[in-house]
Amino acid sequence: MKILVIGASGTIGSRIADTLSSAHEVIKANYKSSAVQIDLSDAASIAATFEAVGKVDAIVCAAGNVAFNAFSELSREEWDMGINSRLMGQVNLTKIGSKYLNDGGSITLTSGIVADFPIAYGTSAATLNGAIEHFVKAVALEPPRNIRINVVSPTVVTESLSVYGDYFPGFNSINAEDLAKYYLRSVSGVETGQTFKAFAGN
Amino acid sequence: MKILVIGASGTIGSRIADTLSSAHEVIKANYKSSAVQIDLSDAASIAATFEAVGKVDAIVCAAGNVAFNAFSELSREEWDMGINSRLMGQVNLTKIGSKYLNDGGSITLTSGIVADFPIAYGTSAATLNGAIEHFVKAVALEPPRNIRINVVSPTVVTESLSVYGDYFPGFNSINAEDLAKYYLRSVSGVETGQTFKAFAGN
Repeated sequence: MKILVIGASGTIGSRIADTLSSAHEVIKANYKSSAVQIDLSDAASIAATFEAVGKVDAIVCAAGNVAFNAFSELSREEWDMGINSRLMGQVNLTKIGSKYLNDGGSITLTSGIVADFPIAYGTSAATLNGAIEHFVKAVALEPPRNIRINVVSPTVVTESLSVYGDYFPGFNSINAEDLAKYYLRSVSGVETGQTFKAFAGN
Repeated sequence: MKILVIGASGTIGSRIADTLSSAHEVIKANYKSSAVQIDLSDAASIAATFEAVGKVDAIVCAAGNVAFNAFSELSREEWDMGINSRLMGQVNLTKIGSKYLNDGGSITLTSGIVADFPIAYGTSAATLNGAIEHFVKAVALEPPRNIRINVVSPTVVTESLSVYGDYFPGFNSINAEDLAKYYLRSVSGVETGQTFKAFAGN
């Protein structure tokens, strides 16, 4: 398969790319990139990326920003950061990307454990991660040509604990290699409309 | 209690207002209104409404628009209609309204069954209803002074079947009187952070 991985330079994305590369052709796209560049928050950038890359068999998104702040301090600008990236970025990726998917292709998006288990400063993340999970459940019934779509909801990644660990006190982490398997399952399996909750034990 | 009901002229809101009026002082607010006017999609309008109404003991929102269309046809403008009203309208109502709530007050928002059970043309509604449910779960942990917050998720309302029934083939409806009880439960009970799924049998 020819697979486009967005956010391929990140902790999660790079492991997904490694995992998929053993059996597939992986095209790595990043916000900052010398190869394929994409700004998930900009529909025109998404369209330009697909225009350059052409048809693919699978799209994996391990990108999408969201603001963290106390609810009383969250500004509309901070909400909009997540709305435009985590939510509408992945919505636009689905809408535009589905036109470039070969028959039977798949789309795999990313949400996060905060949708189910709130953390401090996580109200916007909970809201928009939850939004994406409900989006996937609904839109899975619409894509044409047997295209499938799922979303992976990771807990905090072990390799990122030094950065994010304090936000997830007592949460079990998942290492990137185990997390990447959920994306492989979405890409190579048959399921659709699912949220793969990558946080056993939480 | 002094209770502000937003969308009080609607099918659901008018019944909520009737139900609550038997034991409480209800202030009815609407988008089009000769009494208290509010545009949920405009944070300045929300602030102006509370400036006029003053402190309340409970806020009930039975308003919030969202666009219905096939996913491939949903424009960003249509998404934004729901983002600004159903999602950020209720988020802003929570943020601004909590400052005007007396200690121990409550906020009750509205999502909808489409979050759980997709219908044709309902992708944006599913996404943004789901977003509000995850928002409530997360933000319930943040409000100060024992303020509670819940969301009611109604199935199609019996009194609206002539208008919306075709969108909900085979779904059980709920009459507005029974639906209003969920709002009463949110206002007068002790629960917080909950989604009351007003669709037994679906």
